[in-house]
Amino acid sequence: MDKKKALEKIAQRLRIHSFKMTTKAGSGHPTTCSSMAELAACLFFDEMRYNIHDPFDWSNDEFVLSKGHAAPLLWAAYAEAGIISQKSLMNLRKITSTLEGHPTPRMKWVKAATGSLGQGLSVGVGLALAMKLGKCPRRVYVVLGDGECAEGAVWEAANQAALAGLDNLCAILDINRLGQSGVTMHEYDLDAYERKFKAFGWNAIQIDGHNIPQILSALKKAKQSKKPTAIVAKTIKGKGVSFLEDRNGWHGKPLNREDLQRALDELGPMPEIDAKKYVRKPNKLKKPQLKRGFRFAKNTYSKETATRRAYGNALVSLGKVNDSVVCIDGDVKNSTYADSFFAAYPKRSFDVFIAEQNMVGIGIGMAARGYLPFLATFAAFLCRAHDQIRMAGYSFSNMKLVGSHVGVSIGADGPSQMGLEDLALFRPIPGCAVLYPSDAYSTEGCVEAMTKYRGLAYLRTSRPATPILYKKGEAFPIGGSKVLKKSQKDKVAVVAAGITIHEALKAYEDLKKDNIPIRVIDAYSVQPLDLKIRTEIAKAGNKVVVVEDHFRSGGLGDALASLLAGEADILHLAVDELPRSGEPHELLEKYGISAEHIKQAVKQIIKKK
Amino acid sequence: MDKKKALEKIAQRLRIHSFKMTTKAGSGHPTTCSSMAELAACLFFDEMRYNIHDPFDWSNDEFVLSKGHAAPLLWAAYAEAGIISQKSLMNLRKITSTLEGHPTPRMKWVKAATGSLGQGLSVGVGLALAMKLGKCPRRVYVVLGDGECAEGAVWEAANQAALAGLDNLCAILDINRLGQSGVTMHEYDLDAYERKFKAFGWNAIQIDGHNIPQILSALKKAKQSKKPTAIVAKTIKGKGVSFLEDRNGWHGKPLNREDLQRALDELGPMPEIDAKKYVRKPNKLKKPQLKRGFRFAKNTYSKETATRRAYGNALVSLGKVNDSVVCIDGDVKNSTYADSFFAAYPKRSFDVFIAEQNMVGIGIGMAARGYLPFLATFAAFLCRAHDQIRMAGYSFSNMKLVGSHVGVSIGADGPSQMGLEDLALFRPIPGCAVLYPSDAYSTEGCVEAMTKYRGLAYLRTSRPATPILYKKGEAFPIGGSKVLKKSQKDKVAVVAAGITIHEALKAYEDLKKDNIPIRVIDAYSVQPLDLKIRTEIAKAGNKVVVVEDHFRSGGLGDALASLLAGEADILHLAVDELPRSGEPHELLEKYGISAEHIKQAVKQIIKKK
Repeated sequence: MDKKKALEKIAQRLRIHSFKMTTKAGSGHPTTCSSMAELAACLFFDEMRYNIHDPFDWSNDEFVLSKGHAAPLLWAAYAEAGIISQKSLMNLRKITSTLEGHPTPRMKWVKAATGSLGQGLSVGVGLALAMKLGKCPRRVYVVLGDGECAEGAVWEAANQAALAGLDNLCAILDINRLGQSGVTMHEYDLDAYERKFKAFGWNAIQIDGHNIPQILSALKKAKQSKKPTAIVAKTIKGKGVSFLEDRNGWHGKPLNREDLQRALDELGPMPEIDAKKYVRKPNKLKKPQLKRGFRFAKNTYSKETATRRAYGNALVSLGKVNDSVVCIDGDVKNSTYADSFFAAYPKRSFDVFIAEQNMVGIGIGMAARGYLPFLATFAAFLCRAHDQIRMAGYSFSNMKLVGSHVGVSIGADGPSQMGLEDLALFRPIPGCAVLYPSDAYSTEGCVEAMTKYRGLAYLRTSRPATPILYKKGEAFPIGGSKVLKKSQKDKVAVVAAGITIHEALKAYEDLKKDNIPIRVIDAYSVQPLDLKIRTEIAKAGNKVVVVEDHFRSGGLGDALASLLAGEADILHLAVDELPRSGEPHELLEKYGISAEHIKQAVKQIIKKK
Repeated sequence: MDKKKALEKIAQRLRIHSFKMTTKAGSGHPTTCSSMAELAACLFFDEMRYNIHDPFDWSNDEFVLSKGHAAPLLWAAYAEAGIISQKSLMNLRKITSTLEGHPTPRMKWVKAATGSLGQGLSVGVGLALAMKLGKCPRRVYVVLGDGECAEGAVWEAANQAALAGLDNLCAILDINRLGQSGVTMHEYDLDAYERKFKAFGWNAIQIDGHNIPQILSALKKAKQSKKPTAIVAKTIKGKGVSFLEDRNGWHGKPLNREDLQRALDELGPMPEIDAKKYVRKPNKLKKPQLKRGFRFAKNTYSKETATRRAYGNALVSLGKVNDSVVCIDGDVKNSTYADSFFAAYPKRSFDVFIAEQNMVGIGIGMAARGYLPFLATFAAFLCRAHDQIRMAGYSFSNMKLVGSHVGVSIGADGPSQMGLEDLALFRPIPGCAVLYPSDAYSTEGCVEAMTKYRGLAYLRTSRPATPILYKKGEAFPIGGSKVLKKSQKDKVAVVAAGITIHEALKAYEDLKKDNIPIRVIDAYSVQPLDLKIRTEIAKAGNKVVVVEDHFRSGGLGDALASLLAGEADILHLAVDELPRSGEPHELLEKYGISAEHIKQAVKQIIKKK
């Protein structure tokens, strides 16, 4: 059979599967699937090389479905390729199935969860960068919807792909003209998409997205380009079914049984073809063998050092024992101190400019290809990538994020630069470790712990230099805590982390003079919080003052109150209003989290019955 | 004196002020200021019309400093214009001054806090849309840095500005080639910026940003264009000081006293000119008089209704008594039910496509010009705009956000579509009200309460239809709660909100059969939480089960634990892992927040001593 005919048949099979699956499930996006059936057929059954027995084979080309709501078509392609059974397709969206409504890596071939639109191209950039770094001559294909091209993250990714010369990246735009609630921004103005991608430094090719020869030809041309290529494909939403084609109001709606039958009558019988035969195996490539140690030689500190600086030093040491570590920063590397790593390992360092969403997407992509990305920016600016960070969590991504310049202790730059909600951002993500060191040695310990941990982890670093509290080489396991001061007579426990630990220690000295012994606990592992903290608080009379350089909600205080669940009296010191510019010590004072405030709080809670 | 000479002198004054101010403050970004001195001189002392006595004068042109770190230059311009004293400039970054490190609306002329980069153009789009809506023939000027053009949000705004035909919007790009930690993406490739803006549908003009006649000419041409205009200005970072000009390593660094003297020697004496004389007053325009009611005619509900649908209906009713209400949605208006408002008031409705960051920026801009924006999308996708929402809070913006499709109760679409961290996002923002209704009438009450409230407010709506619990017209004030079930013998309180209230009521009925009376409390005001809930819990033996359709951290459970601060035993039911696709009732069951789980939790906590 000639290739064109075969691919047409396969496309039709994918389309028919999608309609059936979504009707069975009672929900889903069949018309979104239908527009990309020919594109997927060409990609999965002619263009891409992949080993159906191993989704993590280094020799595979990579695929990202950025328009995640077309998941049924993706599952259908995997079924036709022989990766999953065709029968399993009918389990779409069941609670027992990995064939979810939008892709997640619970289905092993999915490298990144999608479904929040406009994120897939960044993941593709990450995968493509990983291939370049590992000298892997494979390619990355990302299918985007037209609606999601309104997302700025797409253009952050487009920028970076062109600047990095990612000729191994191909974006396929499924321009079906209709969004969820109406027409898209540019409808069928394909020139607009071409103009934009070209302006962003890409090669762009317009085609009819239902025409197999045009698709194959464009994919071939893309391989010859020295730039990343965008294939701008004009398609029809609901293609193949007269009462759905190019009709508004059918987004995200499955057909009822009757309509399905009408659709199937129009689509004709399931074409007979064994699509598995058209899957193209890759030539076996050797995966680079990388050192993947996590125990690194610790640095020596004798004087006050900012935790952000210690992070930079730790990363350099880690880089020596772990070749998989890559460092990504968004034009603040001289503030986060990622620049230490940049100087030591320029090939493994990526400044992706001021584009945090894309930074995180790249991290997801590189992690999916076996690298261990450390990403840093100001903690405040990680909010910019909240959606991508959330999706990284949903992707079970082994990525490490670092937020510097946390809290009012940064001083005069003002609230826009202060990370005051970062703990609230990271704590909800299932499985995300949240670490907040207070000195140089605890920073090193935390970096080691987060490297060892397989999953998303967040390190919170501070701007000002802080005194050394711990010993070189001391361990800071995830889920641990440190008791810095204690006695048999403690009347109150003070739980703090980061900058406020130093305030708590000052308060301890003053209170000692007043003959009020307190227990000082460093909750450096904000999540998970050490269960032993409960015992320590119990030993201090079940009275606790918790103090943090963060807004009141969502941070250490909430975490502690939740842990204690009524077992102890709590007084919580935190930032309650929008801070101003000022000196760090003035701000700690003004916003109620200084040593003086801790002293007062301790005296107050002692009085409480 | 001729205009060119005058503006050159004023520019030099702004530049000298900036150097002096930052040296005095001991921090700040003088070289960033210096590159835009001529641009600011032309804008503030020739191009723009504004009434120096009233920052909120409807007749004013509007200005947004997107590159917020150039704040000193902005303050200097206001001083030269006679709005603030020149003496006050020396209070830059002091804790007592409104002249902060980055602009916030504590200084009344600032319409939106900036300093998190790449947000200003969206605010400008909002201001320009507000002018169009109010038939105000004024213009909006936004100064952007080149570094921030890597942010996708800039391109979301660019898209929308062109699509909306905002010929009253002018972006001025200060292309000084250097970012914080190195060169920018395109350095001095001004063609790249021009290409991009043109591809996004803008007019673009390249100029020398230190050449007064070129600046004035470009501003004039911008006014003649039917498209929004980007003036791409080549500038020199640190302009005017030989040892700073175009030198890397000087970002965000003030000069020490000696270097300042060297700089001032090069810059020459402060030019003598009374800049105030060059400020151009606007012709007085009449501000449209808008109805601004908040009490609207309530709808009648007799059967199960989704809160998202009730939101749409409430907004339509509100629109009748309040002309300032505008509705903004990101291509999900048929899911959020914003489409009801779109149908009723098309002129006040804006679908800004799938670009949540820009959506929020537009909201900030429209609110700053006196409109009352209601913005809606899936709660999950509000994460995409976390940074803009944070800055809206910092801008004291009177904007209302609505997140639909919260929690696992959405069902089969899967986790990417479930709002499971939205409470954690909104609760930390100082002054942000967070409301979570459970039925149609409480939704109406919440919409009324958030309209009345001046400040940021968030409404959390659910996908499934829920039974009616309340009476038509019942009030749901911010900071309130409702006790739905109570008796003298209550052994446990159950605190819930939204979907879980209905589960709690089912549990109540079952437990009654087991002779276990419980108090059921609807904490619809998640923030601020009603202090009276403490009393109610005390009356139920100080034992409480709190249950929410949200990840464990940062939501209602944390809020309650924090409120109680050790006063009561708490058992917290929440979502602890990444949910799957499935049926709503299956998911409530699987993730431990169903009636059955509440029953078990009540029985468990009763046993606890």
